[in-house]
Amino acid sequence: MLSNHLQNGIETAKLVWSRIPNSEDGEVEGVGLLSTSDGNIVESLDYEVIENYAYREEQAQRGKLYVGYYVAVKWFFALLIGIGTGLAAVFINISVENFAGWKFELTFKIIQTSYLAGFLVYVLINLALVFSSVYIITHFAPAAAGSGIPEIKGYLNGIDIHGILLFRTLIGKIFGSIGSVGGGLALGKEGPLVHTGACIASLLGQGGSTKYHLSSRWFHVFKSDRDRRDLVTCGCAAGVAAAFRAPVGGVLFALEEVTSWWRSQLMWRVFFTSAVVAVVVRTAMGWCKSGKCGHFGSGGFIIWDIKDGQEDYSFRELLPMAVIGVIGGLLGALFNQLTIYVTRWRRNYLHKKGNRVKIYEACLISVLTSVVSFGLPLLRKCSPCPEADTEAGIECPQAPGIYGNYVNFYCSNNKEYNDLATIFFNTQDDAIRNLFSAKTFREFSAQSLLTFLVMFYTLAVVTFGTAVPAGQFVPGIMIGSTYGRLVGMFVVNFYQKLNIEEGTYALLGAASFLGGSMRMTVSLCVIMVEITNNLKLLPLIMLVLLISKAVGDAFNEGLYEEQARLRSIPLLESRPKYKMRQMTAKEACGNQKVLSLPRVVKVADVVSILRTNKHNGFPVIDHSRSGETLVIGLVLRSHLLVLLQSKLDFQHSPLPCDPSGGSRAMRHNFSEFAKPVSSKGLSIDDIHLSSDDLEMYIDLAPFLNPSPYVVPEDMSLTKVYNLFRQLGLRHVFVVPRASRVIGLITRRDLLIEDTEDSAILELQSTSRSS
Amino acid sequence: MLSNHLQNGIETAKLVWSRIPNSEDGEVEGVGLLSTSDGNIVESLDYEVIENYAYREEQAQRGKLYVGYYVAVKWFFALLIGIGTGLAAVFINISVENFAGWKFELTFKIIQTSYLAGFLVYVLINLALVFSSVYIITHFAPAAAGSGIPEIKGYLNGIDIHGILLFRTLIGKIFGSIGSVGGGLALGKEGPLVHTGACIASLLGQGGSTKYHLSSRWFHVFKSDRDRRDLVTCGCAAGVAAAFRAPVGGVLFALEEVTSWWRSQLMWRVFFTSAVVAVVVRTAMGWCKSGKCGHFGSGGFIIWDIKDGQEDYSFRELLPMAVIGVIGGLLGALFNQLTIYVTRWRRNYLHKKGNRVKIYEACLISVLTSVVSFGLPLLRKCSPCPEADTEAGIECPQAPGIYGNYVNFYCSNNKEYNDLATIFFNTQDDAIRNLFSAKTFREFSAQSLLTFLVMFYTLAVVTFGTAVPAGQFVPGIMIGSTYGRLVGMFVVNFYQKLNIEEGTYALLGAASFLGGSMRMTVSLCVIMVEITNNLKLLPLIMLVLLISKAVGDAFNEGLYEEQARLRSIPLLESRPKYKMRQMTAKEACGNQKVLSLPRVVKVADVVSILRTNKHNGFPVIDHSRSGETLVIGLVLRSHLLVLLQSKLDFQHSPLPCDPSGGSRAMRHNFSEFAKPVSSKGLSIDDIHLSSDDLEMYIDLAPFLNPSPYVVPEDMSLTKVYNLFRQLGLRHVFVVPRASRVIGLITRRDLLIEDTEDSAILELQSTSRSS
Repeated sequence: MLSNHLQNGIETAKLVWSRIPNSEDGEVEGVGLLSTSDGNIVESLDYEVIENYAYREEQAQRGKLYVGYYVAVKWFFALLIGIGTGLAAVFINISVENFAGWKFELTFKIIQTSYLAGFLVYVLINLALVFSSVYIITHFAPAAAGSGIPEIKGYLNGIDIHGILLFRTLIGKIFGSIGSVGGGLALGKEGPLVHTGACIASLLGQGGSTKYHLSSRWFHVFKSDRDRRDLVTCGCAAGVAAAFRAPVGGVLFALEEVTSWWRSQLMWRVFFTSAVVAVVVRTAMGWCKSGKCGHFGSGGFIIWDIKDGQEDYSFRELLPMAVIGVIGGLLGALFNQLTIYVTRWRRNYLHKKGNRVKIYEACLISVLTSVVSFGLPLLRKCSPCPEADTEAGIECPQAPGIYGNYVNFYCSNNKEYNDLATIFFNTQDDAIRNLFSAKTFREFSAQSLLTFLVMFYTLAVVTFGTAVPAGQFVPGIMIGSTYGRLVGMFVVNFYQKLNIEEGTYALLGAASFLGGSMRMTVSLCVIMVEITNNLKLLPLIMLVLLISKAVGDAFNEGLYEEQARLRSIPLLESRPKYKMRQMTAKEACGNQKVLSLPRVVKVADVVSILRTNKHNGFPVIDHSRSGETLVIGLVLRSHLLVLLQSKLDFQHSPLPCDPSGGSRAMRHNFSEFAKPVSSKGLSIDDIHLSSDDLEMYIDLAPFLNPSPYVVPEDMSLTKVYNLFRQLGLRHVFVVPRASRVIGLITRRDLLIEDTEDSAILELQSTSRSS
Repeated sequence: MLSNHLQNGIETAKLVWSRIPNSEDGEVEGVGLLSTSDGNIVESLDYEVIENYAYREEQAQRGKLYVGYYVAVKWFFALLIGIGTGLAAVFINISVENFAGWKFELTFKIIQTSYLAGFLVYVLINLALVFSSVYIITHFAPAAAGSGIPEIKGYLNGIDIHGILLFRTLIGKIFGSIGSVGGGLALGKEGPLVHTGACIASLLGQGGSTKYHLSSRWFHVFKSDRDRRDLVTCGCAAGVAAAFRAPVGGVLFALEEVTSWWRSQLMWRVFFTSAVVAVVVRTAMGWCKSGKCGHFGSGGFIIWDIKDGQEDYSFRELLPMAVIGVIGGLLGALFNQLTIYVTRWRRNYLHKKGNRVKIYEACLISVLTSVVSFGLPLLRKCSPCPEADTEAGIECPQAPGIYGNYVNFYCSNNKEYNDLATIFFNTQDDAIRNLFSAKTFREFSAQSLLTFLVMFYTLAVVTFGTAVPAGQFVPGIMIGSTYGRLVGMFVVNFYQKLNIEEGTYALLGAASFLGGSMRMTVSLCVIMVEITNNLKLLPLIMLVLLISKAVGDAFNEGLYEEQARLRSIPLLESRPKYKMRQMTAKEACGNQKVLSLPRVVKVADVVSILRTNKHNGFPVIDHSRSGETLVIGLVLRSHLLVLLQSKLDFQHSPLPCDPSGGSRAMRHNFSEFAKPVSSKGLSIDDIHLSSDDLEMYIDLAPFLNPSPYVVPEDMSLTKVYNLFRQLGLRHVFVVPRASRVIGLITRRDLLIEDTEDSAILELQSTSRSS
């Protein structure tokens, strides 16, 4: 059927396209497509050869050895990501704990003599820390602001956002979050750790940072986007595992919240990375126990062991727990809504005015936070210490700044404590520990908890969106545990006989707020279980999450989705929109004219086409001698730009080049075609061509993707969407209905068994069986 | 371009195809496709209308109300599955515990006077229980034999195996596993519980069992395969959650091991089902605590709380732990290999001879198991009780049959115990509890453990594949914990100073064997953590699993994959085979001739085509008046059979029917087209047509899928495989290359926003916008 001429073109395309790494279909391919010798696209299997053709030819002799090498590198990278993220987490934690510890120590020393002087010192230290953070972000790494989770989610969905995975972003994230968290703002270090893990993974995947000369040829193994995205997924899981010391939670978070394509093979490697992080963190903490890390020993990683808490629950308690769920849903949805308004306002009015305004803003919020957290406890009257508690081993009062409950702050009497200071004038980790604590009935007055809730909620909303690295996990836990404890207090008063702990209700409150705001389910549940080290409360946490998520969903989308939308990150959701049912593929394309290129194209034409539109892919059409036309493939803008820049393939003749094409294709080092991760890539304006060049021709056949996926013109858009989304494509051709069916492929046709020998045989032979 | 005539045919197809539930693309659609008014296939979204056209028209007025109803039914079913599976699990556990408890009680009473009489009673009770189980299976529910997990995995992969989800299978599974587990065979009740959960879910999904008149019209909501498969996924998770009281483990098991398509929306419902199970089981156990359930109170659900075990570990212990991992990998792979041989031998020689042989076989194995478990401890010399242990609150010796260590069995001295009887002559749950127990150093001699390991391993291999419901989890834990404890003993002797518990090593051994045999990772890890109620050991379990899985993978595939292969369940794996790289779509079809049908086809032709081949789908081709041909869709064998049987659409004229087609399509109650779950469906031999009928014509246009997915003939088979596997298709058309590109669909074209109003508007209007 195909004329010889056309067949040759397609064969050439198949032969050479194969050598271009990171080709079209592989870009966001969940299953991971990569090109091979036959010019078509194959999955990059873990246990089989995965490299591009040129590299493969080189390695063909080594066969199995190379396969082993490739697999080993993958696992080695997973190990490195684990170690790197674990160490980054330890570094951030040690720094934050030391800054915060030193700050509180100094302040408390001074307030022995003067509260005013102490207050000033406290404000100034916080201001200095926040200033350093916002300065780093605005002047060095603007992409490191915020939590980074929406951006990573977008990246794993197939959107390349410039700058989010650079080396400078990594550095900015680490040091920025030390400043912002150490400076006492109402934000956490967990979201930034996820971003940190992703950055580490991405940098490893691209073989280090070339800009900072931290690159190594040894690491240039992963040229396909799929491998890089896999690594970033590992990095996300590692970040969560490091932030919460929750390895299983990390895996589930990566699975449920961030990735768009998931394979069960990947799970295994993600799991390994998380396990490595757990071991690294545990080792570091063991090392720090002996006091080598300054203030780190006492606080450190968030683990709120609630083993003294209530282990059982009666059915009568389910009602107040449901109430907590509803409150969580409402407050969470409100939080999402308020942060949308605040972020939109910031973007439209404030941040347009430049970096200076961003710095002023962050400093203002820092001062405000300091004033509130220092000032409010001063206004609070102290309570007398409870008597019974000495039995439980809990001292009262304690000097401020030391880990524990019943802090004596601005109290006239020696046997009194300030309940607001116990939660407010403290690091967030310690405050949560106090809120979760068991056997401390009536430590906090309802009035203090309410004050704290309102103030902290407001601060968290206002702080959200400032130009510093900021996580929402720990503030969410703070807010949730406050109203949880409040409900718990009423339950304790009301159901007097039961063995009820206010701390357990605080925990449920925390789960409910996170559920109501972030709308995660399984991963959040597992994270809560892992950070409290208590499995018995699992069904309760599930219940609360179910309710709060359902309530929240009635109002708006989850925090990350809303933020992604605000930042114009166009996430392709896993299910098609309702509207698409009524549309066909042709309608979706609209009236845009398709710009097709002929197989052999004049350079001047290419330049003018690339200049006049912004399409990233162009169909290539060939005419046989009989005048019949045939679509022979898709060529990418980025590949055209590489061809224009290198000029190696320019030819004088408007006729196709030699169909075998082998020798000419060899002119290229095919890694040129790999998509750059950390730069924006070539632009048509960067390329300078002489007028002689413009008169030349290029034969595109070797550089095109010979068989992109096609759909008939009147196919429902929902079906097209599913094809596009499930396979992670970038371009789909809409073509006329076929005139005949050559064959039908069914399940039976695809049940082909690989024999071990044939696989190896094929691996070593580069000739194509036809 | 399309001629009017053809366009009409396609439009008719679109209009009517929509009303056929359970259409082609929806069959194994992970994303879940279902037909709607515009004749194309859409995803069945949770929050939008999901029913077929006819039903929708009925419901169109109700609009949002119906959507709510549909969603509510989904959640209600999830609740019912949870309750049903939870109750089934409680019933099985209570029955097994009572049978076993009564058996041991009686035996021990008798051995006070005569060991021989006790032995005979013991053998006979076991025999009776096993006989009842194998009788039920062979005569009533043959599909209930084995664990059922490979079959469910196959079902969720898109393979319809007749009989695995029937009501009788459910009943057979429940009562059969009571007999086989209560009868003391070397198998567990966990695999069967997964199958039980899946059966309950499937029966709910099809609206009860029509054969047993347990059906309700109210439940006939789910007509698409996708919804049914979603329910079965919930059922699997519920089964695991019930078996191990591990809700998170259940979700992960469903995700990692059984499903082939997973959506994050589903996760949420699966999670809910698991949570319901946890609550049901907990409630039942609370109720049983007061002694209302006979022997159930003492043993019951497997939870081996190891809170007294070691909480910390030194780096020196990692070496013996790695050794456990390696042993687990080796023994697990060996187990898989041996069971393949045994199963193949059974299938080829033994089970061909009919049910009688199956019964003899199971009875023989029962007697053998009884003799070994009673006889071997008799041969073992008793050991003197340790002295220090009275402090730890552990008595020695204990009367046999009571939950605990240090069982006095056939000992001459009163202060002695029989270590082999402690693990062998006991229910498996209690034996594992004893092996896991802490603070019982040197309770077991190396000799006893080795004897037990060899004997039990052999029994487990031999028992595998008998015609009774059988799980491999608990036997796996038994085997693993035995050698784990053995290694632990050496470690205790070797590293004398550390706080090492043999029980912890037993736990790691159990994890390693399951990892080496089943090759699960995250889910197994979480299950182990949940059943031992100890999070501290998580990194160790991860380490051991990593090693044992890696070692096992070097030899063969996982247990379920191997068994699926043996039972000829053709699972489509998620990644394409290596060989496919070298093949094109056309080559995969082979030389098979494509049988196309014209749009209006003679009944006699349809009958002859259906008789002469076994294809399940046929392309339909139409000729325009100008002689141009065009593929207008795909018609399914099952739909043709329905048309032939009903005879409603037979017409005398060989011309196409009225293109509007509305009224004639209404002749059908479209649920006729739904795929039957529990029967094999129609066959061409069931249909009787008169010679007049054979001369009539059918217009197929209303009954075809107007746009199946197409691939160009020279596309690489790996790409075709990805399309097929990711979208869960049944048929793909191989067509010639297109001559032109009408449009290009990119990410930007698919970012269409649904406005709330338009969705509702469209919901209520049934007219198609064009």
